Amino acid sequence: MTLPMTVPEPGLPARVRIHEVGARDGLQNEKSTVPTEVKAEFVRRLADAGLTTIEATSFVHPRWVPQLADAEQLFPQVADLAVDLPVLVPNERGLDRALALGARRVAVFASATESFAKANLNRTVDEALAMFEPVVGRAKADGVHVRGYLSMCFGDPWEGAVPIPQVTRVCHALLDMGCDELSLGDTIGVATPGHVGALLSELDVPVEKLGVHFHDTYGQALANTYAALRHGVTTVDASAGGLGGCPYAKSATGNLATEDLVWMLRGLGIDTGVDLGRLVATSAWMAGHLGRPSPSRTVRALSHEDDEGIEDSKEQ
Amino acid sequence: MTLPMTVPEPGLPARVRIHEVGARDGLQNEKSTVPTEVKAEFVRRLADAGLTTIEATSFVHPRWVPQLADAEQLFPQVADLAVDLPVLVPNERGLDRALALGARRVAVFASATESFAKANLNRTVDEALAMFEPVVGRAKADGVHVRGYLSMCFGDPWEGAVPIPQVTRVCHALLDMGCDELSLGDTIGVATPGHVGALLSELDVPVEKLGVHFHDTYGQALANTYAALRHGVTTVDASAGGLGGCPYAKSATGNLATEDLVWMLRGLGIDTGVDLGRLVATSAWMAGHLGRPSPSRTVRALSHEDDEGIEDSKEQ
Repeated sequence: MTLPMTVPEPGLPARVRIHEVGARDGLQNEKSTVPTEVKAEFVRRLADAGLTTIEATSFVHPRWVPQLADAEQLFPQVADLAVDLPVLVPNERGLDRALALGARRVAVFASATESFAKANLNRTVDEALAMFEPVVGRAKADGVHVRGYLSMCFGDPWEGAVPIPQVTRVCHALLDMGCDELSLGDTIGVATPGHVGALLSELDVPVEKLGVHFHDTYGQALANTYAALRHGVTTVDASAGGLGGCPYAKSATGNLATEDLVWMLRGLGIDTGVDLGRLVATSAWMAGHLGRPSPSRTVRALSHEDDEGIEDSKEQ
Repeated sequence: MTLPMTVPEPGLPARVRIHEVGARDGLQNEKSTVPTEVKAEFVRRLADAGLTTIEATSFVHPRWVPQLADAEQLFPQVADLAVDLPVLVPNERGLDRALALGARRVAVFASATESFAKANLNRTVDEALAMFEPVVGRAKADGVHVRGYLSMCFGDPWEGAVPIPQVTRVCHALLDMGCDELSLGDTIGVATPGHVGALLSELDVPVEKLGVHFHDTYGQALANTYAALRHGVTTVDASAGGLGGCPYAKSATGNLATEDLVWMLRGLGIDTGVDLGRLVATSAWMAGHLGRPSPSRTVRALSHEDDEGIEDSKEQ
């Protein structure tokens, strides 16, 4: 299998933890609903490929996310895996459902902008934070790890550019209520590397508590990730096979593909623990279930490599 | 039209010259042969979008590149444009054809590896350099600007990792024979940012003479470009709409899409002189001629934006 040459860059982290979101953020944005058994197999294969943090599902009301309405059935099928399996919980009811199944990691989903808080949660930013406070408090009291997603950290479709102090305020509110880590989301994919650097520089949060979550709407996700690494970030969200961004949609607004990320990190000599070949095989298998090719360039290049007669073992 | 927020990064160049290769490197790798009049209109529209260096065609023998067999017909149709119009010339015969039409910029195409020199030129690296020497010498004697392309600067499909001293040797040979600038090519798309930085650091060539030419086979082209900017590079090759990488091919091995590049540069506050809206419209128009969507994420997102009812003028 062709792999990049490893040429480290001074000053970058030695290791990155990939927070794999394909099974949750990916599948909830796919048109096809995937059978529970296929989802469970997907999560197992991701773990087998070396991913150690695999967001498994969401306990949002099935009316809003019908693709993940089988959370109660799915979670027990994967709970025995020796990996972290965070789940999304929008409110106390969602937390109850997750805790009842033994979830030990949950995530809440806040917004840096009023427009998206209104559109996504039908609340103001502060009303949403108030809703999350007891969720985070009860989770922490139970010793459960809490991630806070923060949407629209760079631009917002209604408000345009999002001022950094506005992002900072919500970040600190989430940390103050007890979130263990934050995921800074570029939900509409408009960020560029200088903006990433500016936000990370001004945020005044220990970098160990920060993850980044880039979308590839304008092809910027990997360049932005590289900028974040240069600012010390060691947690990067990505979606196996680029799940969630359908290549046939009018605009491909998907997540950063885990394989493209692993390719870059491997080239930079940054350890992820991921076996790229197994991961590519998993995403190619899931693309088959979804009936369409993966939008990940690495998946497309590597999964068809044998067909094209390129020799194995190009690694130096 | 949605545009990135401009957040400059200290230390990056103020201005980048885009060397647009869509009409040559792009179209020569497309399955469809485009009518000469459409090619001429394409070049005119690229100039109208603000691109100032547009590689127009190739004077390689039509047996090898039938898609560009109309070079003699095309060039006079665009020669009056007030932009630089380099053309590829493989040998003295190609140079004669180009000079007869009044071309004032030519490019030769060398390889950093023996395997690719053999496959592409049926010569050793040194035999190819010997073939280029009179081409470059005669062009320079005529006051014609010469670019030297250098393929396989990072990895080679037969040889794997390409040692940097091997790249350096051919670079200096091309400069010594009189090339005005070099384009460092990652022909198979395997480079990652640390490798880019290492090559640029060790090359010992004034950065003003260097351009970079990245392929998006594994999704790395824009991150690699960002790394090159950080090393002072101000000439970047890109292909409008990502031409040359068919999204339905088994592996998408195309060029960096000019639109995705312009998006990043605009976000970084780096001047290119390009009107992104006009460029996207041009690439969408060409995609129509080719009968398939552009692989550029920016083209896909922006050219369908109106359909999806997103408001105009999201720029801050």
